[in-house]
Amino acid sequence: MLLVPSSPVSPVTPTVVLTIAGSDSGGGAGVQADLRTFAALGLFATTAITAVTAQNTVGVLAVEAMPPQLVIDQVEAVLDDLDPAAVKTGMLARPETVAAVAELAAAGRLPNLVVDPVLVSSTGHPLMDEGGIGAYRELLLPHAAIATPNLREAAALTNRSLKELASIEAMEAVAEELRALGSQTVVVKGGHLRAAEASAAQTGPAAPAPSQLGSPDVVCSAKGVWRLSAERVDTCNDHGTGCTLSAAIAGFLAQGADHLEAITRAKHFVHEAIRDAASWRLGAGHGPIDHFGWARTGTLSKVTVARPVTK
Amino acid sequence: MLLVPSSPVSPVTPTVVLTIAGSDSGGGAGVQADLRTFAALGLFATTAITAVTAQNTVGVLAVEAMPPQLVIDQVEAVLDDLDPAAVKTGMLARPETVAAVAELAAAGRLPNLVVDPVLVSSTGHPLMDEGGIGAYRELLLPHAAIATPNLREAAALTNRSLKELASIEAMEAVAEELRALGSQTVVVKGGHLRAAEASAAQTGPAAPAPSQLGSPDVVCSAKGVWRLSAERVDTCNDHGTGCTLSAAIAGFLAQGADHLEAITRAKHFVHEAIRDAASWRLGAGHGPIDHFGWARTGTLSKVTVARPVTK
Repeated sequence: MLLVPSSPVSPVTPTVVLTIAGSDSGGGAGVQADLRTFAALGLFATTAITAVTAQNTVGVLAVEAMPPQLVIDQVEAVLDDLDPAAVKTGMLARPETVAAVAELAAAGRLPNLVVDPVLVSSTGHPLMDEGGIGAYRELLLPHAAIATPNLREAAALTNRSLKELASIEAMEAVAEELRALGSQTVVVKGGHLRAAEASAAQTGPAAPAPSQLGSPDVVCSAKGVWRLSAERVDTCNDHGTGCTLSAAIAGFLAQGADHLEAITRAKHFVHEAIRDAASWRLGAGHGPIDHFGWARTGTLSKVTVARPVTK
Repeated sequence: MLLVPSSPVSPVTPTVVLTIAGSDSGGGAGVQADLRTFAALGLFATTAITAVTAQNTVGVLAVEAMPPQLVIDQVEAVLDDLDPAAVKTGMLARPETVAAVAELAAAGRLPNLVVDPVLVSSTGHPLMDEGGIGAYRELLLPHAAIATPNLREAAALTNRSLKELASIEAMEAVAEELRALGSQTVVVKGGHLRAAEASAAQTGPAAPAPSQLGSPDVVCSAKGVWRLSAERVDTCNDHGTGCTLSAAIAGFLAQGADHLEAITRAKHFVHEAIRDAASWRLGAGHGPIDHFGWARTGTLSKVTVARPVTK
């Protein structure tokens, strides 16, 4: 019921959300994924584009970062007129842009701020230099309601190697350490846990046997620590899952959910989108996910669970 | 039935469409409107961003045109991997970009090409210099399946003043003249007819009395000339209607409709989106329209008609 758009009669003014992120020409990730996510949740999306990329499901041909002032002009244009209820940041592309967005956040102008600290590509290629990583750590993350690093980003933000994070316990420890930087809640995404395990397995104990569950995410908030797991889906269509998760979290926050509720529902939403796209074929590489699957089926997957960690 | 997304069970790979257009931070027009339109039609949108604008429902704060090569890189990234069934162009921002897109069109790489020749803002401000207008006329329009100028753009492309187009007969004449430039079909949008009438009324006959119908559009194809009318909707929420119309036309072409069918359905779609947003309030100025209204109601407005002109 939660995900059903507003009433068919007399449509009310939709809630506005803002994404500050890069553009993906292939349509699977970035502001394009955010726009689909917000549309699927019945929200009205506004955007500040930080970088224009030429890419498809196979690779990236070109990236052009926007001038930080143009990013801020876009954010100001939205804030001055459209009153967003939540804001997410994706790829910010330049340290100066991280700092400029942080300044708006510090002034209290970015409500329900979800920061997806895009630092490393899914193939491990750095997307931000040391200055950018420092700007996230010292300037922007302290103002995040929720931060959503993946394992590689959690490692970069805490000066660790990926293989040091190759266990759920290590993920929990790093989530607590990241939360100490100032974000109210931290989600460490386990999507690269298998890569970390493989890396650790070369020098440490053997990787665990494949499970029916996908890699868990760890949530650390003022109320405690949780592990979130969903059924594993075998698919190469996983482009844009990180963007979609942070957008969906911002969307649910905009609709009034608390942090854990927003994160759990967002994981539901992403899992459903992955499952619904598992059998399609868009492009020769990592294809996009299906943000509108739930709208066709009218149901949500029930495979996501959130449980407190026993310590 | 036409507008219902694909089957709830075993979703098939969606049809891909490409928009080559500017970004509107306020979310109402440009690639944002195109993405919403394509999503509402069950299509998968890819994008090539030609300009990043900082704007809202009240005005434009900043515009940055992308380098033509970056636009082409984005188009190539899509064409190389995702096989779009239709392409639309919106704001191309630079004469060099018009020429570069025209080169791809001339090589037969942009199927079902819908060209919305964005030359003049809705307030009458020029968005393209004389060189750009010439590039449209000589290079790009000859390769368009369908071109969708508004009255101001039709005037600019034919070296006329707006007031020379202040009658339905003048619109029909200019549509035929524009078709002679090479587009297979031309839609001249009547949205500014009232401004043209007001302008002509200062020196010519009095403007006609207000009608129950909005300003008609004129379609000129190889098969003849048609007038399309929809019921007038009193609303200030009309931002992005032009972008939405051309996107919807491209979308219906991608789904296999012929030209007149695609144009008529697209006008249905836009009218429904205007009607559904008539009572909402997003921003202090010209608010966006509601691309997902039809999805809530499951019905289409029946107010659009297409009829041959008796000559």
